[in-house]
Order: sequence, then structure tokens, then C-alpha cells
Amino acid sequence: MREITLGLVQMKVLATREENLNQAIKGIEDCASHGAQIIALPELFLAPYFCQGKDPKKFELAETIPGPTSDALSKVAAEKKVTLIVSIFEKIASSEQSKTSANSSSPFKFFNTNICIGPDGKIIGKYHKIHIPSEPPDLFAEDFYFESGELGIPVFETPLAKVSALICYDQWFPEIARAAAAKGAEIIFYPTAIGWDPRLSKEISDGEHDAWQTIQRSHGIANNIFIAAINRTGTEDNINFWGTSFVSDPYGRVLVKASTDKSENLIVKCDLDTTSYMRKEWPFLDERKLKLKDQF
Amino acid sequence: MREITLGLVQMKVLATREENLNQAIKGIEDCASHGAQIIALPELFLAPYFCQGKDPKKFELAETIPGPTSDALSKVAAEKKVTLIVSIFEKIASSEQSKTSANSSSPFKFFNTNICIGPDGKIIGKYHKIHIPSEPPDLFAEDFYFESGELGIPVFETPLAKVSALICYDQWFPEIARAAAAKGAEIIFYPTAIGWDPRLSKEISDGEHDAWQTIQRSHGIANNIFIAAINRTGTEDNINFWGTSFVSDPYGRVLVKASTDKSENLIVKCDLDTTSYMRKEWPFLDERKLKLKDQF
Repeated sequence: MREITLGLVQMKVLATREENLNQAIKGIEDCASHGAQIIALPELFLAPYFCQGKDPKKFELAETIPGPTSDALSKVAAEKKVTLIVSIFEKIASSEQSKTSANSSSPFKFFNTNICIGPDGKIIGKYHKIHIPSEPPDLFAEDFYFESGELGIPVFETPLAKVSALICYDQWFPEIARAAAAKGAEIIFYPTAIGWDPRLSKEISDGEHDAWQTIQRSHGIANNIFIAAINRTGTEDNINFWGTSFVSDPYGRVLVKASTDKSENLIVKCDLDTTSYMRKEWPFLDERKLKLKDQF
Repeated sequence: MREITLGLVQMKVLATREENLNQAIKGIEDCASHGAQIIALPELFLAPYFCQGKDPKKFELAETIPGPTSDALSKVAAEKKVTLIVSIFEKIASSEQSKTSANSSSPFKFFNTNICIGPDGKIIGKYHKIHIPSEPPDLFAEDFYFESGELGIPVFETPLAKVSALICYDQWFPEIARAAAAKGAEIIFYPTAIGWDPRLSKEISDGEHDAWQTIQRSHGIANNIFIAAINRTGTEDNINFWGTSFVSDPYGRVLVKASTDKSENLIVKCDLDTTSYMRKEWPFLDERKLKLKDQF
């Protein structure tokens, strides 16, 4: 048995960067004190979800990597000797003109980024969100802010497991989960900001929420791996973030799930040997006949 | 609303071809009398599941298309004015030597085949199963009998809907469902022969069964389409076929589900406009960034 303990910090995001960084650090410390070895935060947890509209001022929220947030969390990772998955609105100095429409004169490119920080405090790698939602404009206008990533789908070799960290809308696409697993990921983390649109009927809302959990569990099944979804909770403008962060195993079984409406930390043990056991019975990765383009 | 009624004939397979053809025809007639317009049968329903071992005599079960089974069911389709999805162990005369190991001197190639018969009794098209399970040898030794299909993933243009009909083990692979949807399939049928191995624990058995439903529901979600799984029931040698044939909608919601242990016919109405509604909200097919090789 190759057991590893994951920690998921489900957060209700507050008004200021300082408050949110503080509650993230408290969440990490709490998870670490309960034995968590890899700990993940929700998508863009440093600020209220600014993509419910198109506001050029919000580009001021972006920061570099390394930068203040990665520095602060690298310190926490090293202190607690834990691996972290951290979502950051990233800006990268660009010699070429940015493709981001609202910032065509900006010297920066902007990405929706995950970084993986190792237990020595060093950045192991980063991922730029590939699938950028664009509709509806008053809910998820992310294409105004972020370019689609061109770093590919990295697998982070942490001391305890090979992991990928994709982001929110990526979770609806089986191809990117397959690509991560084909490159060796044993766990896929999905920092997320998704919720209900209160203008929709209960029937549609329930359908969307159940579909969200089902499609992610299915990536675990198709690839015989673990899935960890880390969501926000609380209502911000038009979105009632539905929480229910969860971890599922290679059978798609939900091992642990958070509430819809509370900030809370999930701790769960995963036996990574389940993957190799299942791949003897159900070798889906080896026996797939239709392959993706490129190296996958 | 573009409503269509599907019929699924879940069967406990009997000893002889005549008995099984008769119960299939009775199932089709019953579904038609309840308004079903497209009716599907389980995988290889004409005989006990012969792939629990490697018996060269079983190649005698194979037949040509057109042949006695397609002729008999074409007649039923035309009489009842319904579209049928029919699973047949097919042999095709081959000028080249067969690749099937046990039949290297055979003048035939052997496939695990679905045909789609239109309401005029004519064969619309056929599909050769692509993903052929090979393990464990006393449960699913299909690679002894069938070559992997080389016909691609056809979409059958029936009078009421564009449908694909994949087969059993195919249902574990998101890529082939994506390929069918990308080619226009609005419904994917999965004639199936899957069940529990009584030698496994209840925990593993429950996990496998739930995974089977989840992965198929997820194909519906990822592609905004309907899924229809038609399974056997009853115990045959080492396999307790788990029934639970079902239809799910583009949210992955199970609209109707059969029992684990009874022959029964499911009838369900599907509003195919759900697909176009959902693709405005969740345009996964258009917004996927990682594409499959070839034309998909």
C-alpha cells in the first residue's frame, strides 16, 4: 500500500488579498497538522471572482511567478514540509504584443496559472489553463483576461506522487485528463470556481451540479487515477459557488466531499497502488485505440 | 421539442439460437407496441456468452451480413416500421488469410458487429467493435474470436436521429464516444455483455458496476448527447450479467434503468433538442483544445 494524504482547502473568498492569503495559509496549516502531504487551494482564491464581467482594472490583480504570493506560500510549504497546488492570476513580461484584447498595448501576457510548490519551498512547475470559458459574459468571461495556455500538460514529480493540476473548465474535457494520465499523472487536481446561476431552474441547477461531479469521477475511471476537485463556496454577484469539493478514486467512488456552503478543509488518505491494481484488470490506457494528436 | 422514443430489450440469454431470436423479436414487438421508434438488443444475444474461454467450435456461430439473422430482423423492422440496433457475430469472406489466431487457415475474418436496420427493413450500416477485451481469459477472451474493427466509427442516419452503435468494452473509452459525437451522433447505443465475477468482493463488484454506469453517463455529458446501454441479465458460467440497462440524457441523468436480474423492455422518450440547448451553454465539442488523430 502506497498511502498518501491529501488536503483540500474549500474557501469562501473575502474582499481583500490579505484576508484571502491569510485564510489560505490557515487552511494549509490546518491540513498539514492533520497529516496532509499535498494540499490544494481553489481557483483564483486571492480575490472575488472578477470574470463576471470585463473590467480592465482587474488586470492589476495579476502578479509574476515568482512573486509575492508564490514567495509567501513557498515559505509555508517549507515550514510545514508539504507540497502545494496554488492558483495564481499570472502576468509574464512579453516582448511581443499581448494577445489579450483589453490589453493590446500591455507589455504582459496574462494566464490563469497553477503552480506546484515542493516541500522544500521550491517551485516544481507550472500549468497555464488551456480551456478558457467565454460564456455567458456575466458569469465566466475568462477569455477577456486569460490567454489559452501553451505550456502543454505538465506532470509534477513531487516527492510522493506524480500529479497534474488542471483548472476548472478543463475538467469537462476527457482529452486533457487522458493526456495528463498518459504522461504519468497519478492524481489530477482541479482548482475550481464553479457554481449555480440563481436565475436557472432547480432542475437545471441540479443537473449541472451532478454533471460536474460525474464528469470528473469519469476521468478517474477512464485513467484509473485519483481526482481532487477544490472549489469555492459562497455567493459572489451572479454565482452561488457550490462548494462540494471532493476526492474520487480510480473506480470513481467519492472518498470525501465538502458541504455546498461552508469554508472547510478536507483530509483524505489515498492508496496510490489502487492504480496499478486496476490497470491489470482494466488496462484502458494501454488498450485505447484512438489516440490524441501530438505525443499523447 | 424533437421527441423520439427508444426501446431497450434487456435479455436473459437462453440455450439455443431459435429461442434467443424469438425472445428478441417478441421484445422488439413489445417495444414497438409501446411506441418505440429505435429499438436495441444486447451484445451477441443469439447465444450464451462464448468468450469465457477459447473454443474453436464457437466460430460456427458466426454468420454473414446479410444472413439469416439480419434477414429475420429486417422483416420485423419493416413490419413494425421501426429502426433496430442488432449485434451479430459476423464472418466475412476474406481473400487474405485471417488474422484470427485460432483460424489462421479460415477463409473468413470474424468481427463483433452491430448493424442498424431502418424502418423499411434495409440495412443502413454496420460497425465492427474496435476495443476487444482480452483479460481475464475465463471471462472476456474476445481477442480469440474477433479482430479489432477497421470500419471506423460510423454514424447511422436513421429517419429520426443520427445515431452511433458502439459495443461493450468501447464504453470505457472517452475517445470513441467523442469521435462518434464529432461525426454527428445524437445518441450512442452500447449493446453490452457485462457482469459481476462472483469471485470478487462486494466492494470491488459495487465499484465496477457503478463505474460502468458513470463512465457512460460521462460520455453523454462530455458530448451533450443521449446514451443507451443495453445489457444481458442472468448468470452464465463465471459471469453474473448485471442488467441495469439504462438511458441517460446530456446532463448524464439516468432517465430509465432496468433491474439487475430480469428480462425486461425499457421504453423512454428523449427530447433531442436538449443537445442543441446544452451546446449553447456548454459548447464542449467546439471548445475542446486537444483533438484526436485522423478526422476527429
